[in-house]
Amino acid sequence: MRFVRFGNKGEERPGVVFNDEIKDLSAHLSDLSGAHLDPSFLRSLDQMNLNGLPTVPASTRLGPCVANSGKFICIGLNYSDHAAEAGMDVPPEPIIFMKATSAISGPNDPIELPRGSTHTDWEAELGVIIGRHAKYVSEAEALDHIAGYCVVNDVSEREFQTQRSGQWTKGKSADTFGPVGPWLVTPDEVDNPQNLSINLRVNEVPRQTGTTATMVYPVAYLIAYLSQFMSLHPGDIIATGTPPGVGMGQTPPVYLKPGDQIELSIDGLGTQRQVVVGAGSA
Amino acid sequence: MRFVRFGNKGEERPGVVFNDEIKDLSAHLSDLSGAHLDPSFLRSLDQMNLNGLPTVPASTRLGPCVANSGKFICIGLNYSDHAAEAGMDVPPEPIIFMKATSAISGPNDPIELPRGSTHTDWEAELGVIIGRHAKYVSEAEALDHIAGYCVVNDVSEREFQTQRSGQWTKGKSADTFGPVGPWLVTPDEVDNPQNLSINLRVNEVPRQTGTTATMVYPVAYLIAYLSQFMSLHPGDIIATGTPPGVGMGQTPPVYLKPGDQIELSIDGLGTQRQVVVGAGSA
Repeated sequence: MRFVRFGNKGEERPGVVFNDEIKDLSAHLSDLSGAHLDPSFLRSLDQMNLNGLPTVPASTRLGPCVANSGKFICIGLNYSDHAAEAGMDVPPEPIIFMKATSAISGPNDPIELPRGSTHTDWEAELGVIIGRHAKYVSEAEALDHIAGYCVVNDVSEREFQTQRSGQWTKGKSADTFGPVGPWLVTPDEVDNPQNLSINLRVNEVPRQTGTTATMVYPVAYLIAYLSQFMSLHPGDIIATGTPPGVGMGQTPPVYLKPGDQIELSIDGLGTQRQVVVGAGSA
Repeated sequence: MRFVRFGNKGEERPGVVFNDEIKDLSAHLSDLSGAHLDPSFLRSLDQMNLNGLPTVPASTRLGPCVANSGKFICIGLNYSDHAAEAGMDVPPEPIIFMKATSAISGPNDPIELPRGSTHTDWEAELGVIIGRHAKYVSEAEALDHIAGYCVVNDVSEREFQTQRSGQWTKGKSADTFGPVGPWLVTPDEVDNPQNLSINLRVNEVPRQTGTTATMVYPVAYLIAYLSQFMSLHPGDIIATGTPPGVGMGQTPPVYLKPGDQIELSIDGLGTQRQVVVGAGSA
């Protein structure tokens, strides 16, 4: 199934995609968070008569496809060809860093350049949404803890990230720097998370073209690995790294400016479309 | 006022300290989170007849003194003498990193060593709890966004932090690595946040003895600085850095082992007491 959250910012309600329409689930489900993300609960909704649910107008805004995320965990340099374009070695173990959860936004919300930003960049990524608590889980059981997959744009200010005193969080956490969605797609609809094409265009120019087949550390490994260092809880989002083609990897580098239009998609997980706006405009 | 949260883990209720007793506020306040952390709301509770509230048994567990924290932001190397003991320079701008919010625990809960840990260390810190949204605020107005101050132990696994591929989050985020409390102390009870002594003892041996007077970047500066990179929301916790005397700074280094007892306190903000336990024991 493909779940969504629709409505104004901060007032989103849960829905499900059925026959290319969004059906309102809010009479059956308070939100896509906590225990409602458990894989067995989400599967149980498959028995519902979706056709009988109210239809949401097609023009309705989509919010992030998960609510109350406690953590927004990112994996750095997880595609060997992206590491090369960043001028860095493939790490001997996954690199973990955090985005602020306050950066989470809807898949088509504007991206606001922070004040003083001259190096804001894109990163299309496969997102994994945790559905069940994971602590010290093995790689074999890791996938059982997933609620679903989604598209994430790990928007990044490169100067803030690397030139303003250590640790990447500073360049990853501005408001609107974390579009998540449009859909939370349950694992039964994703044949192989390690064989999905990822594409991102800016102003209709193809910039990122990759596939999760070239990830250094695959999804099951990442969940098992992360769960050795911290508990993963329902609603936590893992952004699994970006393929080559980010702005700083272009010759010469290309960074985002007001008015730019970004479109990114992953096989079966839908498409995000964002317009870039100046500081204070979103 | 000094606010607390009391009760079993995950079921905490809000309270207030009055005449050395804890009074139950839950009839008047759902929890210490969101809009209830606004400085003007907290001040309004001062008018209440606290003596008439139910008294909580003294043996009741204390939880973290704030609920639903969206971010747990830490400042690195913010005391010049701690930077020296860590063998690092004072940074030209504040270093920001994140602890997982799932690491937050009560002030006297056990600290669980993660599996494979041999370098778990302590860090007594002044914690700042945000009470009102802050984005692009000036240093002059920064303190108006504070709900209160508290004690934080920024427990850190040094090998995970620095020897397991980049970014400190990995060593900062294990369950129980973030005791917060006992009290959220409102700013009117803190004469000067830049003149508080900080002390930490392990097995009754004094290890950290410092004062917030020697912070490189003071609280008001940190809030203003952080708010340039991300929105701060009510409930967000900022751990402002640790003074000298951490375990890795001892000669030879000293790390925590099961059975160790930690006691840490800050002037006017109360005392935390933790017992260290092995992996899987908390």
